[in-house]
Amino acid sequence: MEFVNGGVCAAKGFKATGVEVGIKKGHSGKKDMAMIFSETECKAAGTFTSNLVKAAPVKWDKKIVTESDSVKSVIVNSGVANACTGIEGLNNCDILADKVASETGIKKEEVLICSTGVIGQQLPIDIMKEGISKLYTNLGENESDATLAAEAIMTTDTVSKQVAVKTIIGGKEVHIGGMCKGSGMIHINMCTMLGFITTDVNISKEMLQKALSEVIPDTFNMVSVDGDTSTNDTVLLLANGMAGNDCITKVDEAYNEFKKALYAVCEGLSKKIAADGEGATALFEVKVLNALTKQDAIGLSKSVVTSSLTKAAIYGHDANWGRILCALGYSGVEFDPEKVDIFFESAAGKLKIVENGVATDYSEEEATKILSEKEVTCIADVKMGNENATAWGCDLTYDYVKINADYRS
Amino acid sequence: MEFVNGGVCAAKGFKATGVEVGIKKGHSGKKDMAMIFSETECKAAGTFTSNLVKAAPVKWDKKIVTESDSVKSVIVNSGVANACTGIEGLNNCDILADKVASETGIKKEEVLICSTGVIGQQLPIDIMKEGISKLYTNLGENESDATLAAEAIMTTDTVSKQVAVKTIIGGKEVHIGGMCKGSGMIHINMCTMLGFITTDVNISKEMLQKALSEVIPDTFNMVSVDGDTSTNDTVLLLANGMAGNDCITKVDEAYNEFKKALYAVCEGLSKKIAADGEGATALFEVKVLNALTKQDAIGLSKSVVTSSLTKAAIYGHDANWGRILCALGYSGVEFDPEKVDIFFESAAGKLKIVENGVATDYSEEEATKILSEKEVTCIADVKMGNENATAWGCDLTYDYVKINADYRS
Repeated sequence: MEFVNGGVCAAKGFKATGVEVGIKKGHSGKKDMAMIFSETECKAAGTFTSNLVKAAPVKWDKKIVTESDSVKSVIVNSGVANACTGIEGLNNCDILADKVASETGIKKEEVLICSTGVIGQQLPIDIMKEGISKLYTNLGENESDATLAAEAIMTTDTVSKQVAVKTIIGGKEVHIGGMCKGSGMIHINMCTMLGFITTDVNISKEMLQKALSEVIPDTFNMVSVDGDTSTNDTVLLLANGMAGNDCITKVDEAYNEFKKALYAVCEGLSKKIAADGEGATALFEVKVLNALTKQDAIGLSKSVVTSSLTKAAIYGHDANWGRILCALGYSGVEFDPEKVDIFFESAAGKLKIVENGVATDYSEEEATKILSEKEVTCIADVKMGNENATAWGCDLTYDYVKINADYRS
Repeated sequence: MEFVNGGVCAAKGFKATGVEVGIKKGHSGKKDMAMIFSETECKAAGTFTSNLVKAAPVKWDKKIVTESDSVKSVIVNSGVANACTGIEGLNNCDILADKVASETGIKKEEVLICSTGVIGQQLPIDIMKEGISKLYTNLGENESDATLAAEAIMTTDTVSKQVAVKTIIGGKEVHIGGMCKGSGMIHINMCTMLGFITTDVNISKEMLQKALSEVIPDTFNMVSVDGDTSTNDTVLLLANGMAGNDCITKVDEAYNEFKKALYAVCEGLSKKIAADGEGATALFEVKVLNALTKQDAIGLSKSVVTSSLTKAAIYGHDANWGRILCALGYSGVEFDPEKVDIFFESAAGKLKIVENGVATDYSEEEATKILSEKEVTCIADVKMGNENATAWGCDLTYDYVKINADYRS
């Protein structure tokens, strides 16, 4: 497996682009609509927000992913979320899919729709219909086209986010590429995390969904923003089979290789979301080792990565192990505080700072050096079993919390 | 029932004071030790942190509250939390209690101990022993003495926090008074929420604990800070019986009157903690009405009051009902989003902004007026049953989140 460029255009047969149609009022110069398009039929898989309040496009996509055998296009807008918009919001999905169908010659049931932005406003449907024509005209299959699409789905993101890999499955070269948008720490426009992944692998719809459902809990679902789960969160995965490998229809070597490559794409995208927290200076990774159950490992790692106190300490380059132990302690997971080892690790080295629940005689200077890197990992070995989990977040910075990181110094 | 002054000295027979002994390095001029003292025997009740990692004084107090029939003194220090301090931390509790006993002539088992401050440091035990002598010498029973104590337990609090009431129980005038310290939003020194309540009511130990255990879930436990539950959180309640009412030994009219007064004190203290969030400009109260179960009502109200997006909107005086509906939606509680009504209320009026899940035609101008007050209430009527809950927090202010409140304007 090898990382390549090209985002959602890395896989054969996929085109994309992004344009500005004027959805984001007062933000001229910012692209706000994107399209992904495949000339050939794609299998589609998706995972959707667990929020009880689901945006209209989430309802639309769930239906299409479940009921349609073929999908050929995804359109995305940023600026307005089409959430809490009642019947009119659902009708607008129908109007947009109709427009894509008539413009491109595909069926309405082959169109997926995603929105991100302000909750409670209706989509500016007329300018979006014009946008669809413009998108279709501008479609391209190059790296630069994928980048236009990745830029058009941004809201408060500071950088566009793309990852792609190629690998060999059943003797054929297969590509998986994706783009996503996420949110910062406490962004007003958190609504939404959106991810789009395309692949030319040949795989059954059932196995495609299985792979996505297995990878999401360990990747996108392990990213911490501010705990607000949006009404629109969606990850879509489209496979058009153009790599020409024998169709993957069961769990075998080919499936495992595909899942491994999909994991790499999803992990890469997830880390990019975490690192793009508003004002963040560091990606903060938390690995929990040897928990009793997988659920325990997830609970413990998420509790640390979401702890404001811990995140502020990371910004302050302060090895404040007390806060980490405290966050493990209130996670709701049973463990023995007096067995826990805690390490910090980064490109600058690795240091054990707690052994069996008590601080080691570590060098604060060395700890500060390790914590001063752009990517910092905290490892907590709870010695209760054999299950591990990794969660990603970012530091809480001075801009947000002036007072917070300076207390101990 | 009537609110009075006097804090922990409002009840007959209780003395208190606060002094500076030098625990907070580099913060000269800040008091850091407090004592509450009763010449007569007190019944004691307590509630303690649910964190699996418990500070040494929490372990000490749990044992005393459970096993001792009489308590006469509480000593508190700020600056060092005595958490994650192993055997030495527990030994230091023993040394402090011994010193209080020898200094004051009471038993070691009659001494409760609380600490708040940095995790992982040992207490500066020698200067604290000197501090105990100083505290005992300075004890007084006036309002000013209670205030000295309330000031000495502060860490990052910007104001000291006291509430007291008097009422009639069984024909006798009874007093309940308390002080507490809390934390701001994402304070470095969140560790700890501490509350101390004294009363001259005559009540059995069993009923005293019952009253406290019934009141805490609706008061202190409904305050949102940043989700970090500390290793030291403690509320202690001491009753010396000097009001002379017939001893309360069962659930009757006298018990209910006592519980009502205790609730008023705990609610008052809780709101003071919420309103003192770092940089907060408003107390944010969230009432959930007509949930199916009490647990549902609590889960829904806490989800809204802890939502960073909602809190930022409150600061921006923005009636962003979409975020409130979103926070209800990810609470994990089952309800029908299409039945929810949402109101905003403050001294400036009351306004229905959502009816059956859809925005009403409310005046943004009027909403902004209501949201511009110092105390703002959001009411969500979910129409699923008959259970209610109220949670308290504060807004997320510009100093913390420059970018957040300006997006929609």
